[in-house]
Amino acid sequence: MPTYRAPVEDTLYLLRDVLGYERFGNLPGFEDAGLDTVEAILSEAGKLCEEVLAPLNRSGDQEGCVRHADGSVTTPKGFKEAFRAFTEGGWLGLSANPEYGGQGLPHTLACVCNEFSSAANMAFSMYPGLTAGAIAALNEHGSAEQKALYLPRMIEGRWTGTMNLTEPHCGTDLGLLKTKASPQPDGSYRITGTKIFISAGENDLAENIVHLVLARIDGAPEGVKGISLFVVPKFIVDADGNPGARNGVVCGSIEHKMGIHANSTCVMNYDGATGWLVGEANKGLKAMFVMMNEARLGVAIQGLAQSEVAYQNAVAYARDRLQGRALSGTKAPDKPADPIIVHPDVRRTLLTIRSFNEAARALVLWTALQGDVSHRSADEKTRIAADDMMGLMTPVLKGVLTDRGFDNAVAAQQMFGGHGYIAEWGMEQFVRDARIAMIYEGANGIQALDLVGRKLSANGGRAVMAFFKEVGGFLKENAADAGMAPFVAPLKQASDDLQKATMWFMTNAMAKPDNAGAGSTDYMHLFGLVALGFMWGKMAKASLSALDANPGDHFHSAKLMTGRFFMERVLPETSLRLTRIATGADTMMAMPAEMF
Amino acid sequence: MPTYRAPVEDTLYLLRDVLGYERFGNLPGFEDAGLDTVEAILSEAGKLCEEVLAPLNRSGDQEGCVRHADGSVTTPKGFKEAFRAFTEGGWLGLSANPEYGGQGLPHTLACVCNEFSSAANMAFSMYPGLTAGAIAALNEHGSAEQKALYLPRMIEGRWTGTMNLTEPHCGTDLGLLKTKASPQPDGSYRITGTKIFISAGENDLAENIVHLVLARIDGAPEGVKGISLFVVPKFIVDADGNPGARNGVVCGSIEHKMGIHANSTCVMNYDGATGWLVGEANKGLKAMFVMMNEARLGVAIQGLAQSEVAYQNAVAYARDRLQGRALSGTKAPDKPADPIIVHPDVRRTLLTIRSFNEAARALVLWTALQGDVSHRSADEKTRIAADDMMGLMTPVLKGVLTDRGFDNAVAAQQMFGGHGYIAEWGMEQFVRDARIAMIYEGANGIQALDLVGRKLSANGGRAVMAFFKEVGGFLKENAADAGMAPFVAPLKQASDDLQKATMWFMTNAMAKPDNAGAGSTDYMHLFGLVALGFMWGKMAKASLSALDANPGDHFHSAKLMTGRFFMERVLPETSLRLTRIATGADTMMAMPAEMF
Repeated sequence: MPTYRAPVEDTLYLLRDVLGYERFGNLPGFEDAGLDTVEAILSEAGKLCEEVLAPLNRSGDQEGCVRHADGSVTTPKGFKEAFRAFTEGGWLGLSANPEYGGQGLPHTLACVCNEFSSAANMAFSMYPGLTAGAIAALNEHGSAEQKALYLPRMIEGRWTGTMNLTEPHCGTDLGLLKTKASPQPDGSYRITGTKIFISAGENDLAENIVHLVLARIDGAPEGVKGISLFVVPKFIVDADGNPGARNGVVCGSIEHKMGIHANSTCVMNYDGATGWLVGEANKGLKAMFVMMNEARLGVAIQGLAQSEVAYQNAVAYARDRLQGRALSGTKAPDKPADPIIVHPDVRRTLLTIRSFNEAARALVLWTALQGDVSHRSADEKTRIAADDMMGLMTPVLKGVLTDRGFDNAVAAQQMFGGHGYIAEWGMEQFVRDARIAMIYEGANGIQALDLVGRKLSANGGRAVMAFFKEVGGFLKENAADAGMAPFVAPLKQASDDLQKATMWFMTNAMAKPDNAGAGSTDYMHLFGLVALGFMWGKMAKASLSALDANPGDHFHSAKLMTGRFFMERVLPETSLRLTRIATGADTMMAMPAEMF
Repeated sequence: MPTYRAPVEDTLYLLRDVLGYERFGNLPGFEDAGLDTVEAILSEAGKLCEEVLAPLNRSGDQEGCVRHADGSVTTPKGFKEAFRAFTEGGWLGLSANPEYGGQGLPHTLACVCNEFSSAANMAFSMYPGLTAGAIAALNEHGSAEQKALYLPRMIEGRWTGTMNLTEPHCGTDLGLLKTKASPQPDGSYRITGTKIFISAGENDLAENIVHLVLARIDGAPEGVKGISLFVVPKFIVDADGNPGARNGVVCGSIEHKMGIHANSTCVMNYDGATGWLVGEANKGLKAMFVMMNEARLGVAIQGLAQSEVAYQNAVAYARDRLQGRALSGTKAPDKPADPIIVHPDVRRTLLTIRSFNEAARALVLWTALQGDVSHRSADEKTRIAADDMMGLMTPVLKGVLTDRGFDNAVAAQQMFGGHGYIAEWGMEQFVRDARIAMIYEGANGIQALDLVGRKLSANGGRAVMAFFKEVGGFLKENAADAGMAPFVAPLKQASDDLQKATMWFMTNAMAKPDNAGAGSTDYMHLFGLVALGFMWGKMAKASLSALDANPGDHFHSAKLMTGRFFMERVLPETSLRLTRIATGADTMMAMPAEMF
């Protein structure tokens, strides 16, 4: 049975020593969240995740969700009580609008809690996760009346929320969507159509479910410019918020999936359901896209979370499992064999995972802080710069953290030999659960296209230039520091590779966009590697200075060794990525479709 | 519902045009297996796999195996009939000893059939696969009496076979095994102990099950030098081969696994079961190791097989699924969107998989032919050289084909977006099934150690020198051929990287074996890439000459384009592998185990 321990100490180190969290103290929501408060909050969140959510992860996977003949869905045993504990602790509204009962704390802290809960129980964490997404969408685009009606109950966790985008014939290409919305005399709409892959679409955790639905108003233009956003509650509510009549939306079936069995993935049938327009007509996709950065960052965090919990269990096993002797001579002569952690190949695997996890956590927090600044700073220029960075980094984090997070879960599973393949040990569940994060909220190939096709060139490349400037500044600042040399030189090399790749696109992809598409995934990973390497640079600096004050400190020594491993073994991949990008699209486009 | 088409044409091309199959015509078993016969055999095998085995793959996964209270196990619906069709077609004994009813055909052809059946239904193919392994072990090490008793019925498929090595506390390190064998006055042994992860350990396909079991005779030396091999039938057979009394071995439980649900993975409890020694006492491990090359090649083939069937289904989906428009302008103006195969990133993914599959198939056949030569050539020097090459390539194929095969199944699944995560579409099963191949028959980390620690240095490096000589000869031979330039130059570069890495080990790993362990997995993959690139060189040569004769031929044009893709995009990974190897073990060994 796998276990989980929330990395509270590592998170505090990152906020305090690496990312200068206290610099943000003047932003709204940050004033009341000094580092002492943050520590108290994270310890409490960690406890809930370790003690309440983690123990339900295996049983939830085995039991799964059950749909009944009337379309209702039962979640696994214990989920209802856990959801109650979660919402009563106020975790759902941690960063939500205080006007409607939220705590208004930094979204960065919500991201940390998301990491903990996703690692403890990914399928569970999606119920509050999707509710939080729906809360944010309504808070941003809903009318005052809609906000007053829905938000307090959702923030309280009495009602859950969902996002209804995908249809059988369209996922990526939402311009093809067919769900119809017919205006009614009372100002409402009748919504008709089929939505698929609706996470948490039906469940027994809440008194009501608030569906946010993309649909096309009768006579609206074709394509993405004719899509509107609607709110469609499972039970229609009166002006006082009391759920009344059952609305015309039911769960037609739940999907049998590779993983996240404890989350109900529903086919939702809308049959003249009553809905209300959210925001402007035909601007629905734009409204959803505003929420996309947060949602995609949330999925990136799931990649990190599965990698973290898989690592923790692989280390415990590697310390415990006796098999063979060290190549350099017996290490545990009193035992029938040495623990497998003596073997270099086991350490290589573990350090590959760990050196990712720690840098990915830093990158999530760094990006999340940009998100908070972009929403909360009083200064417009600061807000714009932060929003640029958030927009640029979002596809990188979504694609890279979920791809590598999955690979890491697979590598951690491998440490268990045959036991890793057996359900009882829990490792194979991490792999199955991690797999979805590469797919939903925009498959990773789409993230790569978003990065290369949109984010790179937006505003004349302003965001990417700012990123290069920040990395370049860091390199210059530390160029003369001998202790930093093992970090500065490889990061410089990697950053050069990224700049060359960017330049290659400028030269070769303007006239021939296929050259951008052909290199997009490699570019996304190249970017991610540089960003992770940059985080290792920042961590090395913080830990070197901590070791100056307190030589031999284990936490900081381990940081430096892990970081050096990343610089030596992981970061050089940038050169391969650049080589591939520079081969362009010609070979792959030459083959006619029928010859594949 | 996924489909499968056996790559008969591609296999014939490899045997005939690329690997010079006809050169082997003078070997025993090859005389009666000219190319026409081979074509007939493979077409027949393909038909069985496509029409009988593939349709049971999904249902077998859903249904799984069921163990009953008496320890008996029921396989999924249709498996019994399919096994009957398989054995009645003579497929189990294709390359088995004709003295006992086998057909004595080249083992290479059995490898091809193994690819087809593993792709069609991996869980099913393990039943005959393990039986074939047990047949080979008994054929090699059994007494005349044992052979006469067991082999004819196993070859006929009336009895199945198993291999019992692993115990709860030992998998890799068999020196720790505890199962006891107590000699009896009648010359038999009483076997007592627990074996785990026994594939096909119990099933309802056959009248009897012949277990080959590693155990320790009372008073035998500790460690690997005290292990003996026993044959333990489920029902004790009389001298005429009639199954009689039930033996003291039962299936205690079956494992709940990530995949291959339709194969029963059993805990086998031996409680004073009657067994007979196979071969010499205390030489059991050596006897099993003789079989290891074939068994590991069989698992390598499973990696290729899952990659192949996943590719076929991904291509079909990519041609069919309409979503978005081509970056270079609309390609299907009459449709609401373009098929996704227009997108470079989709093509990149598909060609990554395909360029592996075709080279991996070539490499399997090239290696399998070495295996046949090593067993069947009349010339001792030829036999030794072939055995060297087989021994060297076995860990490379097992590790690389299963690692990349799994990655490819994941990549193919990704093409389906959300549908790839849903069981109904079948793609996620390929991923779950492919995962085990990286683990069993020696986890891939162990393959890498076998390569670096044993195979590389065996006989003063004779095998690896022969490999370099062969690749070097090919490069020299084709150096002046302009058409071959896109293949020769990258292969030269990759081969140089491999030679440098080999030299690095010679210089740095003798005194410090951790340096070999730290680079072992990277070295295995580097070796695999060069070997796959070498196969692309051979295929390019064959297809260029075919195109000379018949310009515009689609089959050969596709080969060249796919091969160029491999040379441009995949092969350059060798340089990254070399970089990693050359960083050595210091960083990863510096961290104390408790700091992980």
